[in-house]
Amino acid sequence: MLKPFLTLTTDFGLADHYVGTMKGVILDICPQVRMVDITHDVTPFDVAEGAYTIAQAYRYFPRNTVHVVVVDPGVGTSRRPILMEAAGQYFIAPDNGVLSMIYSREKHKIRLLENHRYFRKNISNTFHGRDIFAPAAAHLCAGVTPGRMGKPIDDYLRPSFEKPLRSGKHTWNGRILKIDRFGNIVTNFHVEDFPKLEQRDFILAIGPCETSVLARNYAESGPGELFAIFGSSGYLEVSVSQGSAAKQIGCGPGAAAELRLL
Amino acid sequence: MLKPFLTLTTDFGLADHYVGTMKGVILDICPQVRMVDITHDVTPFDVAEGAYTIAQAYRYFPRNTVHVVVVDPGVGTSRRPILMEAAGQYFIAPDNGVLSMIYSREKHKIRLLENHRYFRKNISNTFHGRDIFAPAAAHLCAGVTPGRMGKPIDDYLRPSFEKPLRSGKHTWNGRILKIDRFGNIVTNFHVEDFPKLEQRDFILAIGPCETSVLARNYAESGPGELFAIFGSSGYLEVSVSQGSAAKQIGCGPGAAAELRLL
Amino acid sequence: MLKPFLTLTTDFGLADHYVGTMKGVILDICPQVRMVDITHDVTPFDVAEGAYTIAQAYRYFPRNTVHVVVVDPGVGTSRRPILMEAAGQYFIAPDNGVLSMIYSREKHKIRLLENHRYFRKNISNTFHGRDIFAPAAAHLCAGVTPGRMGKPIDDYLRPSFEKPLRSGKHTWNGRILKIDRFGNIVTNFHVEDFPKLEQRDFILAIGPCETSVLARNYAESGPGELFAIFGSSGYLEVSVSQGSAAKQIGCGPGAAAELRLL
Repeated sequence: MLKPFLTLTTDFGLADHYVGTMKGVILDICPQVRMVDITHDVTPFDVAEGAYTIAQAYRYFPRNTVHVVVVDPGVGTSRRPILMEAAGQYFIAPDNGVLSMIYSREKHKIRLLENHRYFRKNISNTFHGRDIFAPAAAHLCAGVTPGRMGKPIDDYLRPSFEKPLRSGKHTWNGRILKIDRFGNIVTNFHVEDFPKLEQRDFILAIGPCETSVLARNYAESGPGELFAIFGSSGYLEVSVSQGSAAKQIGCGPGAAAELRLL
Repeated sequence: MLKPFLTLTTDFGLADHYVGTMKGVILDICPQVRMVDITHDVTPFDVAEGAYTIAQAYRYFPRNTVHVVVVDPGVGTSRRPILMEAAGQYFIAPDNGVLSMIYSREKHKIRLLENHRYFRKNISNTFHGRDIFAPAAAHLCAGVTPGRMGKPIDDYLRPSFEKPLRSGKHTWNGRILKIDRFGNIVTNFHVEDFPKLEQRDFILAIGPCETSVLARNYAESGPGELFAIFGSSGYLEVSVSQGSAAKQIGCGPGAAAELRLL
Repeated sequence: MLKPFLTLTTDFGLADHYVGTMKGVILDICPQVRMVDITHDVTPFDVAEGAYTIAQAYRYFPRNTVHVVVVDPGVGTSRRPILMEAAGQYFIAPDNGVLSMIYSREKHKIRLLENHRYFRKNISNTFHGRDIFAPAAAHLCAGVTPGRMGKPIDDYLRPSFEKPLRSGKHTWNGRILKIDRFGNIVTNFHVEDFPKLEQRDFILAIGPCETSVLARNYAESGPGELFAIFGSSGYLEVSVSQGSAAKQIGCGPGAAAELRLL
């Protein structure tokens, strides 16, 4: 029998003991699990960026992988922990929209995570990653069925950061989902929603900056020249060859982006 | 038979080859070991922060886990490498106090790590993580008994950064152990030493800043307002809701903190 | 049977989903593989630094380890993917010199990575780590022989950043390969090329700064005093005891270094 896989996506960073402690809790419950870090450097408290990150990565993992996603500004308040089944995989997270870019696109069943038998005995008010999410995920890996963890719900949070809004006949208001390591600006304009952009004239505007160039690779444009490109995620990105578009424009996650077809 | 677990806590960072190299050395000696990073981002040379970090994480790991801790400003000098047995686990580190927050609280036996048979053949003056600590830990995982590694000692270093000092009838002088990713300031005032703080009026002072509020979760206070909270580690932390207390106060690890009961 | 090992060295950073996504692709093809990160924080697009990093780490890993190295400013252009066999191990990388510090020193065979059967079906122009390098490496771990991946070539890139150039009877022009976490400046003057430096008077100059001191450990010199030391990699480094030599001098990777024997 192959070992179960478990991934971790958090905003805990790697400089503290938090991630290591979660892994200790998981291995103590399910020693045969094999863990993979997606990232722990989601911008602190940025639920939309966390949602984008796990939505990019999950589909590449084997069936039955358990994904733990903890970007959780409401830890210790009444926000609920949830367990989702979707795409043949499992997801454990707070109910704050961080799974929304998956459940808006995949058939899914969401349960309340409510059976305290699968949590740690003493639950702190500040570290549910260790006390609730990690142990529940480890028990799932160890063979506990989702049905024993809690009952299905359908009033989970549905935030609106995924899709651009149409604001005119040829105009859409979108937003920046993520600035990546290379300074590429990932917007929420998806190739599936704008499949023929290549054949159109367009303006993509972020703050005071605009581009009308749709490139096919990062080396196509000259140094310092802004261009748009459908990135590996399928989202339209704004980039500069061998430079940081985000620094050049001076923008960050959550900022507005506008697409105008001409 | 389950595979042995080994954790790594260092100040080596993740941008160099150092950590990967240590893991290669370990896998070459004990291919079945399974490794977990606690953190590699301890502030360089900060032994107290390293001591706090491993002391937070170890207890969550399974019995027989081998913990390697390398925060080692004295590498290449005469400071000694040690092996500790405590809490059913093993710890390998330099003798500079980095294990002191564990041996001050757990029953323990400490040995000198002195059998060169379990080191690499050529020992550099600058990278004992690779040449001494990693191979010794891997041999331990592979079944070598602690007794073969070296003889017990009791003159290991006992530093004083763990406990606050009482400086008056109602006053204690403590220190900052750690600034975490979210800017929370972790002090060395532990809930076990001040169990009834919730029922008392108090002032917690760091530099020119003070707070008298003891919150139960991070969302309880208004934005920008400093408050104290017993964090998930049991230590009193100073925090700001969705902001960085460390930036607001302008303080770092090692700085003084004072607690006054009123 | 022991599980195959696979290492990853990239400039992707850890803040995005890129590394986690590559790991998902790998585990989906070869679930029994065990992965180790060397680093993902190579300075973006710095091929020489990537070459130095993997050349430091590979020799410590067990036979048959598969090393994946993705520092790839030319992604999406006509630069070729390659597979190298050397030192009983395997290396997968773009043909841009990032493996050159290994093939300049080890007996090796290099193949073009050209059999699309071992790539993902849809290949993006921007993320060959996910679409080409990760799946090819995973198939190699799963038992596919190198011969099925592509034919041998001998016109692979031979860059010149490894060795210093002799510019006078007693003078060599070298360069900075890497600034490490502690601010140590790693040059490309190797102990094997200058074995008797200890017995000579010399000047090592970087920018406006010079040192004539060859230390044996980091604690030997006084605070703030620059010194040279043969580091754990065998390269001559410029360091400051418990400080950052790189900050003090104000230099970065790629800058010139000059060695004069007196």
